[in-house]
Amino acid sequence: MLYDILIIGGGIAGMTSALYAKRNNKNVLIIEKEAFGGQIASSPKVENFPTIQSISGLELSDRIFTQITEYGVDFELDTVVSLKKENDIFTVITVYGEYQSKTVVIASGVEHKTLRIPGEEDLVGKGISYCAVCDGPFYKGEEVVLVGDGNTALQYALLLSEYCSKVKVCTLFDRFFGDESHVTALMKKDNVEVIQNVATVAFEKDNSGLTGVVFENRIDKSRFTIATKALFVAIGQIPDNDIYSSLADLDKYGYILSDENCTTKTEGLFVAGDCRVKAVRQLTTAAADGAVAALNACNYILKHVDLWK
Amino acid sequence: MLYDILIIGGGIAGMTSALYAKRNNKNVLIIEKEAFGGQIASSPKVENFPTIQSISGLELSDRIFTQITEYGVDFELDTVVSLKKENDIFTVITVYGEYQSKTVVIASGVEHKTLRIPGEEDLVGKGISYCAVCDGPFYKGEEVVLVGDGNTALQYALLLSEYCSKVKVCTLFDRFFGDESHVTALMKKDNVEVIQNVATVAFEKDNSGLTGVVFENRIDKSRFTIATKALFVAIGQIPDNDIYSSLADLDKYGYILSDENCTTKTEGLFVAGDCRVKAVRQLTTAAADGAVAALNACNYILKHVDLWK
Repeated sequence: MLYDILIIGGGIAGMTSALYAKRNNKNVLIIEKEAFGGQIASSPKVENFPTIQSISGLELSDRIFTQITEYGVDFELDTVVSLKKENDIFTVITVYGEYQSKTVVIASGVEHKTLRIPGEEDLVGKGISYCAVCDGPFYKGEEVVLVGDGNTALQYALLLSEYCSKVKVCTLFDRFFGDESHVTALMKKDNVEVIQNVATVAFEKDNSGLTGVVFENRIDKSRFTIATKALFVAIGQIPDNDIYSSLADLDKYGYILSDENCTTKTEGLFVAGDCRVKAVRQLTTAAADGAVAALNACNYILKHVDLWK
Repeated sequence: MLYDILIIGGGIAGMTSALYAKRNNKNVLIIEKEAFGGQIASSPKVENFPTIQSISGLELSDRIFTQITEYGVDFELDTVVSLKKENDIFTVITVYGEYQSKTVVIASGVEHKTLRIPGEEDLVGKGISYCAVCDGPFYKGEEVVLVGDGNTALQYALLLSEYCSKVKVCTLFDRFFGDESHVTALMKKDNVEVIQNVATVAFEKDNSGLTGVVFENRIDKSRFTIATKALFVAIGQIPDNDIYSSLADLDKYGYILSDENCTTKTEGLFVAGDCRVKAVRQLTTAAADGAVAALNACNYILKHVDLWK
């Protein structure tokens, strides 16, 4: 079986790609390694997707999954091991199989770096968040804690400072590693407190979720607890694109180089969503990429129809 | 009153901008000249928006409108006449008033060119469509007619030919005015018939909608009717951005020059959705732009907070 469009990743970008591809009558396979929906599926409350006032990330994912199932998309729960292109046909090798396709959309997403502290996973959505843009507004008027020292951390802190009563920003070293303009803006904020040289070591919680975060001062090893219901962790994200690096260029962080047209250096290979270089990683931008990548894949197939005769 | 973010246009891009801006605690005004929802509001059936299997464009618009109303957005039904920036404050002059804001998001959309034939407006959604990507899939296996001769017309014809039994492409002159590669691909299609030198002159209809399209041969003035339930009109779109041309660069078609970051040459002025230069104009890409423009406007305000003290 030669697929028209093979989509790697069943998050919002990948599933929206499938929606557009199927509406254009293409044979579509999505290979997802863990669970359809991607990162958003673990978010308990989503309030920034147009048309939906409030929904769990899991239900939002399920809605799109149901929608594309109606169109007859093929699915595989499997992990992609390698991708190659020979004679205008892409071969995707997975742990359990091998698939051929005229085009491929990489929508493999990213994973947020976690603190790797026991109990962290259980508190996601119950006080711990990796996206202040998404979840910050749930804590208007409250005191929140943010861990991180890069541009994302700085931007999150600035956003949170606009509507939270207090933002305590905890950094591992004695400085930030982001744009000076962000740091300057942050220093002007009356409701921001920066706590330096501290490592996050443990969480305190009750039945409803997080109640406090325990830090250790890296210099004198003293420990202290900040009482809070909200901890934002902004210590980086990890894309997983190394296996595609012969067919697509990656930036130094491992994101696939592309622009809003979602093309790569290889004809017929497209990239959509969080796994590509982009400034804003949101549900809406993932969905847009999915649509664009699928339409461009359809155009590519139309223009090169003789290749697969 | 000095707004934080003033949004021109209440379509999907503008309303998504408002959603993101309000979630970041900004004072937001949307000025819409006709009806909230923009172009999509006139579409009877939308099946390409992730999470929603099928919905009318009007209901889709209403859902977002309700969503942002909950956040307390200010609305004005008014037409923008001019935009200027002085002392870091934007002034928007409308037919009925004048508004000041720290930032502006232009989300003014486009209008599809119509054939200007009596009865056309009543048949929109009942056989006449201006977007084959959106509405083509409703006519799988059927014979459809397309009017137009540019790249959009060619791409629509190619897409339709993938799943319609027959596509009759009617051009006003004896040639296409689009990419040669599109024309070549189209000529290879067995189920595409090109009818040249014809002008659309009238529609035939019954109670359920369009039943036929009447054409006139421009050479011998003979008239003939093509029986069809679906006419796709792809004769161009009209942006309406001239009043912004001192603050934002326009391309030769009148679209505002920008990229996926939605910035313009004027600091604090952003552009979102169909009115900017972009390859794919869909609900998903409009929503993405709305999110990006709003977040960038929020960042701009944060970084320049001293300007408005």
